[in-house]
Amino acid sequence: MSMDAEWVAVDWGTSNLRAWGMGPGGEILFARSSDRGMGKLAPAEFPGALTALLADDFAETGPRVGVLICGMAGARQGWLEAPYLDAPADLGALAFGAVAPEMTGMRFVPKILPGVCQKLSGAEDVMRGEETQLLGLSALLPGFSGAVIMPGTHSKWAQLDGRRVERFTTAMTGELFELLRTHSVLRHSLGGDLDGPGREQGLEAGLAAGIAAPEKLSSTLFKVRAGSLLSGRQPDWCAGFLSGLLIGAEIGGQRDWLDGNEIPLIGGPALCALYAKGLTMAGASSRIIDATEATLAGLKAARAQE
Amino acid sequence: MSMDAEWVAVDWGTSNLRAWGMGPGGEILFARSSDRGMGKLAPAEFPGALTALLADDFAETGPRVGVLICGMAGARQGWLEAPYLDAPADLGALAFGAVAPEMTGMRFVPKILPGVCQKLSGAEDVMRGEETQLLGLSALLPGFSGAVIMPGTHSKWAQLDGRRVERFTTAMTGELFELLRTHSVLRHSLGGDLDGPGREQGLEAGLAAGIAAPEKLSSTLFKVRAGSLLSGRQPDWCAGFLSGLLIGAEIGGQRDWLDGNEIPLIGGPALCALYAKGLTMAGASSRIIDATEATLAGLKAARAQE
Repeated sequence: MSMDAEWVAVDWGTSNLRAWGMGPGGEILFARSSDRGMGKLAPAEFPGALTALLADDFAETGPRVGVLICGMAGARQGWLEAPYLDAPADLGALAFGAVAPEMTGMRFVPKILPGVCQKLSGAEDVMRGEETQLLGLSALLPGFSGAVIMPGTHSKWAQLDGRRVERFTTAMTGELFELLRTHSVLRHSLGGDLDGPGREQGLEAGLAAGIAAPEKLSSTLFKVRAGSLLSGRQPDWCAGFLSGLLIGAEIGGQRDWLDGNEIPLIGGPALCALYAKGLTMAGASSRIIDATEATLAGLKAARAQE
Repeated sequence: MSMDAEWVAVDWGTSNLRAWGMGPGGEILFARSSDRGMGKLAPAEFPGALTALLADDFAETGPRVGVLICGMAGARQGWLEAPYLDAPADLGALAFGAVAPEMTGMRFVPKILPGVCQKLSGAEDVMRGEETQLLGLSALLPGFSGAVIMPGTHSKWAQLDGRRVERFTTAMTGELFELLRTHSVLRHSLGGDLDGPGREQGLEAGLAAGIAAPEKLSSTLFKVRAGSLLSGRQPDWCAGFLSGLLIGAEIGGQRDWLDGNEIPLIGGPALCALYAKGLTMAGASSRIIDATEATLAGLKAARAQE
């Protein structure tokens, strides 16, 4: 431990907990992570999980340290519910919606940022964590206005205008892939080496099929099984096709969001590269922005609002 | 046991095994069923499962009895593979494709009918069991020509012309419903009483959403979760919505199959009623034909081909 961080930036998701110690100039002094995500914790276990994660970086006593948290820790089933901001929402006021859970006996002063919801009947939607990435994007690309895609287990598509989230929607693409790969009849076609040379070819065929006919997703899915039974498609091809089909159908079904601008893709580089390929096939250009970079930029911007 | 049946009609699916003893005039003398479906049996276990099912209806010795089987018993992982007929396929010759598995020491002479496949690249598909229902339909509705829907775990849409299957496709609607209900994030919105009064209202909203925008299925799915978080949607409404959305997207995505004719729906009455409602909303009329009736009519017609 060299110097104490001035504050701690935390991304507390469903599966993972990540923290960064921030210096006075915004520099990262340390990074910690654990698998103690919201999904594994009862409310009373959050303080202990945070303390354990930061134990090596702070002495037990010293000046109080602000901990700014985004993500699922603020869900109803998380540490303490941080009520959603309503979309259209001004992310310039994100920190004003933060809640402060109790944490006695330690020097940390935690605050949890709110998520954003959309109450429009028939278009109800929620996000927690992505709003912080969007705030980060507005800092990384000042003045940006347009559609943003955040690929993931639940992909978010948001219409951003500066720091204002106009509207957004969630596609269950990543979760559908995992469900189908693990539990459906398609699993019989997806056992074995999924990363063979056929994967890329399957991906391209799947992207093309999904983009061309997103309305036929529930029937095109079965082509994975039939293709392996009849055409000898191997598991690597099938995995690529399934992934491409789901991403392609997500993109093809939301063509009305593609406005001709270069679309920021916020997420992990490998997954974003699949979306970038699909967007190119759909006639749209994109740029990839690392999810961690966007989250940190967002937490910094929210910290500056306090 | 009154009189021995002349032959036995068998529907051997993945989950269940059902048999009917048939009299000389086509009358049903007995009906038996068990849960020893193909999915639970190794190839060597099929003869024993059949013998056990029919033990009370036949003496150990006597004249030999033909057993005509349709369904998954003829799959590669079943009793003995019955190679597919290729679509376009003439179901008038279905029995010529039957295979005869060995069965020593008993008086039964089993034959397994083939399924139908479609090898067209990008439209690969397979059916086993439904071809027998289609043959049955052609006997129940002589001269029928048009689209037929067979709702189920894997819904089949077939274009039938008399006894000829022109083309077909499979939608994974039923399996998607079960996967999402059981394993996805939506399960949090589907716990509790699913058959409450809100189910019908949710069903109608889901059908409308799916028919109107089948291309947005992967994002509309998430409205189940968001609707329960934001609008207090109860589990019965959510279950109805999810079911309606998946069925509606299946119908809306295949509008090009709706040709203005009354569409036969072959399946269980409750599930077919949901499809009938969706088809009405999409501007198509339909009639429900009981799945067992169609299967039996098909096995009788195939028996007459032998």
